[in-house]
Amino acid sequence: MYSLDINEKQFNDWLDEVRVFSEEFLRELPKKWAYKNQEKFLLEKKSPFLEPHAFRDVLSEFKSLLEAGGVNTASGKFMGYIPGGGVPTAAIGDFLAALTNRFSGMFYTSPGAQKIENDLIKWMCELFGYPETAWGTLTSGGAIANLTAILAAREKVPFPLWTNHVIYLSSECHMTIDRALKVAGLEFIATRKIPVDLNFRMDLNALEDQMSRDAREGLRPWMICANAGATNLGSIDPLEEIGRLCQRHGIWFHVDAAYGGFFILTNRGKRKLRGIEFADSITLDPHKGLFQPYGVGAVIVKDRENLRKAVSQSASYLAETNSSEISQSDYSLELTRHFRALRVWLSLKIFSEKAFEFTLNEKLELTKIAREGILRTPGLKLIVDEPELSVLGFHAINNDVTQKLHKEILRRGKVYLSTTNVRGKHIIRICILSFRTHKAELDICIGEVREALAAIA
Amino acid sequence: MYSLDINEKQFNDWLDEVRVFSEEFLRELPKKWAYKNQEKFLLEKKSPFLEPHAFRDVLSEFKSLLEAGGVNTASGKFMGYIPGGGVPTAAIGDFLAALTNRFSGMFYTSPGAQKIENDLIKWMCELFGYPETAWGTLTSGGAIANLTAILAAREKVPFPLWTNHVIYLSSECHMTIDRALKVAGLEFIATRKIPVDLNFRMDLNALEDQMSRDAREGLRPWMICANAGATNLGSIDPLEEIGRLCQRHGIWFHVDAAYGGFFILTNRGKRKLRGIEFADSITLDPHKGLFQPYGVGAVIVKDRENLRKAVSQSASYLAETNSSEISQSDYSLELTRHFRALRVWLSLKIFSEKAFEFTLNEKLELTKIAREGILRTPGLKLIVDEPELSVLGFHAINNDVTQKLHKEILRRGKVYLSTTNVRGKHIIRICILSFRTHKAELDICIGEVREALAAIA
Repeated sequence: MYSLDINEKQFNDWLDEVRVFSEEFLRELPKKWAYKNQEKFLLEKKSPFLEPHAFRDVLSEFKSLLEAGGVNTASGKFMGYIPGGGVPTAAIGDFLAALTNRFSGMFYTSPGAQKIENDLIKWMCELFGYPETAWGTLTSGGAIANLTAILAAREKVPFPLWTNHVIYLSSECHMTIDRALKVAGLEFIATRKIPVDLNFRMDLNALEDQMSRDAREGLRPWMICANAGATNLGSIDPLEEIGRLCQRHGIWFHVDAAYGGFFILTNRGKRKLRGIEFADSITLDPHKGLFQPYGVGAVIVKDRENLRKAVSQSASYLAETNSSEISQSDYSLELTRHFRALRVWLSLKIFSEKAFEFTLNEKLELTKIAREGILRTPGLKLIVDEPELSVLGFHAINNDVTQKLHKEILRRGKVYLSTTNVRGKHIIRICILSFRTHKAELDICIGEVREALAAIA
Repeated sequence: MYSLDINEKQFNDWLDEVRVFSEEFLRELPKKWAYKNQEKFLLEKKSPFLEPHAFRDVLSEFKSLLEAGGVNTASGKFMGYIPGGGVPTAAIGDFLAALTNRFSGMFYTSPGAQKIENDLIKWMCELFGYPETAWGTLTSGGAIANLTAILAAREKVPFPLWTNHVIYLSSECHMTIDRALKVAGLEFIATRKIPVDLNFRMDLNALEDQMSRDAREGLRPWMICANAGATNLGSIDPLEEIGRLCQRHGIWFHVDAAYGGFFILTNRGKRKLRGIEFADSITLDPHKGLFQPYGVGAVIVKDRENLRKAVSQSASYLAETNSSEISQSDYSLELTRHFRALRVWLSLKIFSEKAFEFTLNEKLELTKIAREGILRTPGLKLIVDEPELSVLGFHAINNDVTQKLHKEILRRGKVYLSTTNVRGKHIIRICILSFRTHKAELDICIGEVREALAAIA
């Protein structure tokens, strides 16, 4: 009774129920709320795992937990944060990865799994025009990717010299960069947040002024971290200029392209991201621009040796696993790890790069339409005239009205939008990066904004 | 043609093929090799994703990549490293997590997903007799869990004082501890590897002697890191004594129980792990003792504020996500993250704690049988008389024969065993922690060892 062994019949029955669940989930998704408020949830008083439960009951408990509320991040009407919906091919990839359970950390233990991840990494390096020396790794998300990049860069500056060095960040940099610095023990080195221009791009003059001041004080530049798609409003820093500056001064150039990186598949993206090839390290998030479910980031580093030195290790019980082929464990902060490459590989294989290019282009087009929609709505203003990628910020006549408007949009729950705060202004954000967001969903979004605005008038 | 949208029919067809794949995979698994050598694999010359592929073709490419070789980590005859096979319920959990794609980082965005993770964390805290103040988080594996624990402990020692402090580790500590120290910028603090006794447990006298020497030199103890199931041979350090020592001196006590922690579900485990409740932080790996697929670790911390201070953050675009309920993003190094709690929760719900207790007990019993088997084989010796948990080390008459023996076992490929190196001796390891390893698989293992021994004689 208490075994973990499953017979064929049982597993088949479960898969039947999973199929029914999936069909229903996908069929009903377009009709579902994008946001529903849920304020409280009591934790179980005693262990929830004392007795075995029927599969059907567990599945329906899961369903009711999903239904309870929150943000419906799989919906095409979820435009609150950047991640991109989660293509169902990835769910199949995760299923197969878990069922077959190969260890994707070393070539020796699973050459096939390793080839899948290695092909992906190579593909990413080539996308960004990186040379043969480059390599990278898949991470659980952008936070660990940024951390990994910072560790690679830290290899350039030996410990006692840390306090002598400076890192330059855009004031729009992602919060995980600050945390990565803290994690890496660099919380106390000089950190300069460089102001941004009207379009939220790092101000080059301010950067150079700050660098000169620091040089006069005997500080040495260590790293510049630029955004290629800042989370707030999608702004892209002047990559080419910063890249040349870094090259001239021998500074590590990191580009956090977690959000914007995969737009390089599109023509517009190629133009916007010009100069990213100067980067010593790039953070990418397949769970954003490749529309994967939550749980897969990536980092690529131009000179792989910097990455390897920062993270690789060995142990006596892994002696036989050495191989001339590339093992991800030499480039990753993880040892045992999720075979997350499979979901990405499967999705790219089935749909092809072209499908991702097409879908990313669609998001850029939809953003133009969203822009028009906001411009044509009396009482609303854009915070940036021309959105760089697929995030759009707008506000009402004053902060009070903007806040009321956002509350009303959420109360209605048909679409989910988020807010931010810039230059003392409350901003509502429309982030268009779900593969399920098409013209129809965007029309609903603009309609909702207008109706909510009318309702609070 | 190039869209990412999938119609119902298509997705259904794919699920049919996945079902066929799964049935075949599970049916053939018992007959499959545990290890097959694969020396080379060429990376794709050009992008492997240029054109779309039929689902069936991608699935069969994946199958042939699996078949190519490596270690069959899902097999019950895989006894090379610790991870535990991967219960198929977890595959279903991963599928559902990716399909529904809820963001499991914040209560606000997915109260249901958050409740699932929170119930799990609460359950883990209670398993180890932790007080109400405790909390923790699920990580991608033990490496990030150990890193997170070290960051929580680092909060106790402000930056400029680092160089004044000492960390004490068993010489058997896991390699990810050393790396976590390096990552955290603590590579250069005094690190003492304390020798182990004949059973590979940390030597208390040596520890106290070292601490006295360090105190005389003006160094202050910061942290003691003990093993509860060392990776090499499963040894458990004297937790109760070390715990009391830490309490007396106000030292952070970390227990790396990635391997051994969940044995606390068994009576023998409860005895062996006595004193673990003294720990300020504990690393656990559900992909080991809870038989989950690769990709889920955990860390719990006795005073949650230490964890929160070490990792929590905020950003303006997340303003509305504040909630009085617990959000994992306040306790995790990740922001967007895999909803890895679902696989564990689903497995525990369906099978119940009892099934895991039963299965862990079975592994302990099998280890006794393995011990007998080795003892009764002329020419082989155990490295530890009584294995503490479910890892067993043995060797032949000399290093040369041991190496030959291991090579022959791998060449035969029916079972997979690994090696290690201790006290100048080559050791072959039998790790019994797959839920698919039963008496029959163990008999095959012992049989293979004997036949290989005969073959090289």
